[in-house]
Amino acid sequence: MLTVAVVGGAGYIGGELIRLVLGHPDLELAAVTSRRLAGRRLDGTHPNLRGTTDLSFVAPDQLGRYDVLLLATGHTETMHSMPDLLGRADVVIDLSADFRLADPAQYRRYYQVEHPHPELLDSFVPGLPELHRKRLVEADRISVPGCMATAAILALQPLADAGLVAGLVTVDARTGSSGSGATPSPANLHAERSGAMRVFAPSGHRHQAEISQSIGGRPVSMTATGVEAVRGVQVVCRVPVVEGVDERTLRLRYREFYRDERFVRVVTTRTGLYRLPEPKILTGTNYCDVGFAVDEQHQQVLAIAALDNLVKGGAGNAVQCLNIRFGLPEHAGLDFIGLHPV
Amino acid sequence: MLTVAVVGGAGYIGGELIRLVLGHPDLELAAVTSRRLAGRRLDGTHPNLRGTTDLSFVAPDQLGRYDVLLLATGHTETMHSMPDLLGRADVVIDLSADFRLADPAQYRRYYQVEHPHPELLDSFVPGLPELHRKRLVEADRISVPGCMATAAILALQPLADAGLVAGLVTVDARTGSSGSGATPSPANLHAERSGAMRVFAPSGHRHQAEISQSIGGRPVSMTATGVEAVRGVQVVCRVPVVEGVDERTLRLRYREFYRDERFVRVVTTRTGLYRLPEPKILTGTNYCDVGFAVDEQHQQVLAIAALDNLVKGGAGNAVQCLNIRFGLPEHAGLDFIGLHPV
Amino acid sequence: MLTVAVVGGAGYIGGELIRLVLGHPDLELAAVTSRRLAGRRLDGTHPNLRGTTDLSFVAPDQLGRYDVLLLATGHTETMHSMPDLLGRADVVIDLSADFRLADPAQYRRYYQVEHPHPELLDSFVPGLPELHRKRLVEADRISVPGCMATAAILALQPLADAGLVAGLVTVDARTGSSGSGATPSPANLHAERSGAMRVFAPSGHRHQAEISQSIGGRPVSMTATGVEAVRGVQVVCRVPVVEGVDERTLRLRYREFYRDERFVRVVTTRTGLYRLPEPKILTGTNYCDVGFAVDEQHQQVLAIAALDNLVKGGAGNAVQCLNIRFGLPEHAGLDFIGLHPV
Amino acid sequence: MLTVAVVGGAGYIGGELIRLVLGHPDLELAAVTSRRLAGRRLDGTHPNLRGTTDLSFVAPDQLGRYDVLLLATGHTETMHSMPDLLGRADVVIDLSADFRLADPAQYRRYYQVEHPHPELLDSFVPGLPELHRKRLVEADRISVPGCMATAAILALQPLADAGLVAGLVTVDARTGSSGSGATPSPANLHAERSGAMRVFAPSGHRHQAEISQSIGGRPVSMTATGVEAVRGVQVVCRVPVVEGVDERTLRLRYREFYRDERFVRVVTTRTGLYRLPEPKILTGTNYCDVGFAVDEQHQQVLAIAALDNLVKGGAGNAVQCLNIRFGLPEHAGLDFIGLHPV
Repeated sequence: MLTVAVVGGAGYIGGELIRLVLGHPDLELAAVTSRRLAGRRLDGTHPNLRGTTDLSFVAPDQLGRYDVLLLATGHTETMHSMPDLLGRADVVIDLSADFRLADPAQYRRYYQVEHPHPELLDSFVPGLPELHRKRLVEADRISVPGCMATAAILALQPLADAGLVAGLVTVDARTGSSGSGATPSPANLHAERSGAMRVFAPSGHRHQAEISQSIGGRPVSMTATGVEAVRGVQVVCRVPVVEGVDERTLRLRYREFYRDERFVRVVTTRTGLYRLPEPKILTGTNYCDVGFAVDEQHQQVLAIAALDNLVKGGAGNAVQCLNIRFGLPEHAGLDFIGLHPV
Repeated sequence: MLTVAVVGGAGYIGGELIRLVLGHPDLELAAVTSRRLAGRRLDGTHPNLRGTTDLSFVAPDQLGRYDVLLLATGHTETMHSMPDLLGRADVVIDLSADFRLADPAQYRRYYQVEHPHPELLDSFVPGLPELHRKRLVEADRISVPGCMATAAILALQPLADAGLVAGLVTVDARTGSSGSGATPSPANLHAERSGAMRVFAPSGHRHQAEISQSIGGRPVSMTATGVEAVRGVQVVCRVPVVEGVDERTLRLRYREFYRDERFVRVVTTRTGLYRLPEPKILTGTNYCDVGFAVDEQHQQVLAIAALDNLVKGGAGNAVQCLNIRFGLPEHAGLDFIGLHPV
Repeated sequence: MLTVAVVGGAGYIGGELIRLVLGHPDLELAAVTSRRLAGRRLDGTHPNLRGTTDLSFVAPDQLGRYDVLLLATGHTETMHSMPDLLGRADVVIDLSADFRLADPAQYRRYYQVEHPHPELLDSFVPGLPELHRKRLVEADRISVPGCMATAAILALQPLADAGLVAGLVTVDARTGSSGSGATPSPANLHAERSGAMRVFAPSGHRHQAEISQSIGGRPVSMTATGVEAVRGVQVVCRVPVVEGVDERTLRLRYREFYRDERFVRVVTTRTGLYRLPEPKILTGTNYCDVGFAVDEQHQQVLAIAALDNLVKGGAGNAVQCLNIRFGLPEHAGLDFIGLHPV
Repeated sequence: MLTVAVVGGAGYIGGELIRLVLGHPDLELAAVTSRRLAGRRLDGTHPNLRGTTDLSFVAPDQLGRYDVLLLATGHTETMHSMPDLLGRADVVIDLSADFRLADPAQYRRYYQVEHPHPELLDSFVPGLPELHRKRLVEADRISVPGCMATAAILALQPLADAGLVAGLVTVDARTGSSGSGATPSPANLHAERSGAMRVFAPSGHRHQAEISQSIGGRPVSMTATGVEAVRGVQVVCRVPVVEGVDERTLRLRYREFYRDERFVRVVTTRTGLYRLPEPKILTGTNYCDVGFAVDEQHQQVLAIAALDNLVKGGAGNAVQCLNIRFGLPEHAGLDFIGLHPV
């Protein structure tokens, strides 16, 4: 059994990390930190855990040494604590944004901060198994991408790598309310958020930088909208394509690209309600569903992906990386099939 | 035109008062107070008002004198400011709980406070036109009942007044999220409240005292549950009845009791989805729908009522009282029919 | 009083027409047809109407002659009945898609039918007051645009008319469930539709043709997604613009374009939850909120609009046209301010 | 590996049975029947299953012989096919209502049918492990209780068995939309069901008979309300109790009653949002959470339970019975912890 500590376990991503570690056959949940909740039981904050653990939160300074640290602390906060944390485990997997971008200038632009440890940026491997599995096998520092970035990258990479992209890629991302976290604010009041179609980032969303970085620096313009759902991200990427791209080409391309991937399902059914990727049926799972449609009239492809923002868009992806790093079955602890309806 | 000031206009009930006053042919919105938002536009907080008013909030100490004050300040807060406010208008209509109960001991029990002005309690007329219209014609101090109390009283009064109640009345109340107000808290986070069935008061909810007081002091046991909806209250009252009560008796009784009431609709259809009262189709309206079913096997009646907690359960009811007090058409400003679907 | 008949009153748009006519000071609801429901009360199907009308549906062949016919019959069905209906009223306002497109070839392409009366297409004036008010004053045949088309046209027209559009316009439209109508099907089962993010038309949605026609034939690529909400449409239009377009230019342009329009509100607040158009707070109203954001990096403008698909996107717009045609106050019967929260 | 066939696999309960069998380490899904969908892939109807099975539905007459049959065919339909089905497997587990009630007269009263095989009623063991585990070890015919009945029985049995119940028990049950099944109808249209608080059975709901039967024939009066949620049942049972029952007594009683039960969690926390049972966090799990509150003033206990209507209220409970019958670990295939938030 590998010992795992979750740093920053009070929020929604932290709760999912705890849930997945508790249900994992090869992991032992050794500690969960929360400054605010130190001394209180985990299942007081995460009531789904009742009956599965008697652990309580500990203060960050009570952290010992573990095989793995899973970091769910806040953006622009984790960058400061990283040097200390790196010494506390063989492997550190960070779910914050703080080590996702290779270029420190991007942190100035997208996060309005000067990164205090630019020298560490290069040492993190992107925590996206479908693209970086080989490096993850030996990675001691892993940085898991953002939820909307993960979906967009998995939708776009097969096109980008094949040289099919012919112009500005636009990404229309929709997200459920859990993406805003567990801290109450007017924006996530039920009465305000219910039934919302809220364009909270008309352009320049932070995940735009991650997507662009992954597809070779190509320009990306991203819009993010909050819609009614608790979990789930869907991206609709509009891609101008080179001549000759048709449905058959794409079908082959996507199938080949994700042939051996258990957690990416290429959805190519022609009928039915769920013929394009939709996050609803992915709730709680580690799947990312990917699909596409061709707009022949305008020589465009719509590449669509969906995932559960807290699982494949966060905690599940982190556990998948952990499995790879330690030679465990890649799907260990990630077997949940998903519900219909839900 | 009567001048109206809304005291405490930042919350949801305050916002509804503003909306109704702005849409009323005989009222002029003269001032709206908010300590926190003084100086800021009303439509910044209540975006539905865009294009209908250029007013800004004022601080409470900037209040002048008006024909009517509508009070939407907090429970246990209004009881302290009332003496001062009474001097600022001919008519004061209070939407807080602070002058609803006649017995000061009830404030100790249900609100855990010593009422600072018990001598004023008697001077307030209950703001429920269907039961107290005659007194409202001359009332200068009106106290509007709670949203769940209003629904339950309108469901129960026809039975209680006819002497049909034969034992403990139980009230199962369900409410949408706007009833918790506009202040963010973990309980009204969208991710926590969405799809909830949350028994937040298994027994002894505060509105229990109001209901019991209205039906002649008979014992009432009330349970309150938050369910997914933004607006709306539904009560299912279980009433042991005297022998001989059947559907026909009840139908006559309810129809007679509410014969001339525009805003209470007795729902007695036998088929269709909406054959019992449901708040969904009452959104934005001043209706309270009332219906019933007989459980002959157990000599019980289920008396059911529904309303929009912010309108007939608050702001609309207050405007209806105002109309009565000033001899305006009772439905002035309250004509909205309601939407289907919504 | 003008006599009005609603043809096809069983559905959601039909229900809204009835509601608006009943609440209109100058209109008399003379008849409502439904083949299936003939003989049954209107308020059995539209329970919000209880207490406001005792009318029942009549069969289509019982139609007499009226001042106005409002048609809410189905797409590709209305085109056949139109010649007969034109003889039954001075003014016919059609809410189906059957007389929206000027070019009969478009019906072949988008609706897969041969239009039986292409000779009538030219005689219909588009029922969009903000663009065609002058013609509507004298129009006897009016064709109201589709809900998503209305939103997109109102968002795009100020840019298109000023010659600011520099390339392919893309429209990302999101819609609530009432847009699918009142006929049960797997797609609109609550358990399937709840929390959905469903791309039901990745490209080539029918409203695309209406939008393109309105902005001078410029190419438009439209994607339509069903999200969780009952009412409401939001469009996010991505527009490549000519050089030099900045926020200030746009602000002036939009304000000027809609200066005297009561029902189009240009939303340009810089802060707050609702700083871009959102349909939630427009529920039940005849407003279309329009806003924009500039993506300077990619020389694009995001033009955003929101409306209630059944009101400004249908029945309300039709009544607004009727008001114009008969010289009534344009806002008669359309005064509802809108709710917050809802 | 035990071979399992699911009879009636097109609906929501059928889909959950398939999901649980596919994820079970000791079961092999041998066949799934559906008259309507014979020949079509399972994952066309249940899109969550993509990537986990390539099976297609078969017609009922293609059924062979299996170790276990799981029946998810309709109420009043299964009673006719049972004799034939009993010959096709060692163990038959029925999820319809057709063999739940011991007294054939109850089928006349509650289902308006004459039971064609009353002689079989006695041979079925109730599929509720917490109450009937010993009999289930040897049962070849198992009848799983209804979802609301399961919740109510688990809430009430500890009180009833201890002789604490002193009068008429009332059950207020609330249910999500998946309980109405996957067949489209006006009642489960999204636009009608969204935000609903719909009392669809004010008294005499069918599950009332099951509850009464389980607690020794004591009278039960049940009301059922549909609320907004896809999955989940919550029951609030109001129980007049004998003198001397207080919180401490109840706490001990419930804890003792469910001491060794993995799938019943007695919720007795004093603080937090989820201090009483709520189905939201049970989505997808086999848990039934049970709690209570004392209304001392009226000598009543509120016994509250929550579960996922498709899992512990149906398919999960069936698999738990199967595990017991075949000597497998009781939780095999039922390990899912549950999500927060969801």
